[in-house]
Amino acid sequence: MPLVQIALRAGTTPEYRAALADAVHRAMVEAIAIPADDRFQIITEHAPANLLYDPHYLGVHRSDRVVFIHITLSHGRKPQQKRKLYKRITELLAQSPGVPPNEIVIVLSETAWENWSFGNGDAQYMDT
Amino acid sequence: MPLVQIALRAGTTPEYRAALADAVHRAMVEAIAIPADDRFQIITEHAPANLLYDPHYLGVHRSDRVVFIHITLSHGRKPQQKRKLYKRITELLAQSPGVPPNEIVIVLSETAWENWSFGNGDAQYMDT
Amino acid sequence: MPLVQIALRAGTTPEYRAALADAVHRAMVEAIAIPADDRFQIITEHAPANLLYDPHYLGVHRSDRVVFIHITLSHGRKPQQKRKLYKRITELLAQSPGVPPNEIVIVLSETAWENWSFGNGDAQYMDT
Repeated sequence: MPLVQIALRAGTTPEYRAALADAVHRAMVEAIAIPADDRFQIITEHAPANLLYDPHYLGVHRSDRVVFIHITLSHGRKPQQKRKLYKRITELLAQSPGVPPNEIVIVLSETAWENWSFGNGDAQYMDT
Repeated sequence: MPLVQIALRAGTTPEYRAALADAVHRAMVEAIAIPADDRFQIITEHAPANLLYDPHYLGVHRSDRVVFIHITLSHGRKPQQKRKLYKRITELLAQSPGVPPNEIVIVLSETAWENWSFGNGDAQYMDT
Repeated sequence: MPLVQIALRAGTTPEYRAALADAVHRAMVEAIAIPADDRFQIITEHAPANLLYDPHYLGVHRSDRVVFIHITLSHGRKPQQKRKLYKRITELLAQSPGVPPNEIVIVLSETAWENWSFGNGDAQYMDT
């Protein structure tokens, strides 16, 4: 049910990005019970001039290793589940591919359950 | 009023993508009464490593022909209108450019009517 | 707190895009009191076939200089603040880098305050 968009600087290896996407997905499975096969992710790579971030906002240091993670998901997670998700994403990304926790910016956009079609023109979550 | 983002694998022709964008727009006009000239679409093309999808989630088969369609639109469509939209998108994309219905993933993100400016710094939907 | 996505045609200079991003950020600071160091922006450049817009919707003329600005921000701005934001973005972009007001399309997507993590896996806006 989530659509995950990951934006980072160009210049990483496919292996690095695969590990990044894997870790974000695994964190969602572990922290907010996303089904293991509910995986839809888009990674975009950007030139320095096209990915802009403040290096110190809220006292967190950020560098060119910064990763923006924008997750569109259905409504219903409680604040503590969201908190757990942020923690788990940063823990797993620190393990592999080794993104420091201070480099990870996350935003969630919530949408209605009826707002998804996973193929065949069906509204799978409206019908079940 | 909608902003449509279409993501797919790199390697298609401009003609293919034009037909894809046309069909999505036409489906919106037919299914949810979007004005014919209310068309704003961004197509992004991705390397295999950067567009990740589960090949079987919810029993729908997906391949490298998968297309993600993310539509930001104003609030107010009823569930049955959304259902009609999903159906019409898959019908029209099957006709041209020939995307199989199982390859089409759709998500809607709804926003307030006042959240749009279509130029000149005006909030056209707030004022009318 | 906002994540700003700016989409435009390929073919501009880095200086043009830097001025564009600066102006959008400054407008947010001036019009809706975004902190000066709360800046997270992604600029994407698109081939003509991949950025589609109606040239006359709602009577506003648009050309290949069109700029789509999609801002994800926390809930709570009143309609008049949003109106002020649209005006200020177009005023500042007209000054530098010189984007005509008719070329600027803006959409806001609002999200909960708890839906942000600015690093370290913390939910900074949930805790303060």
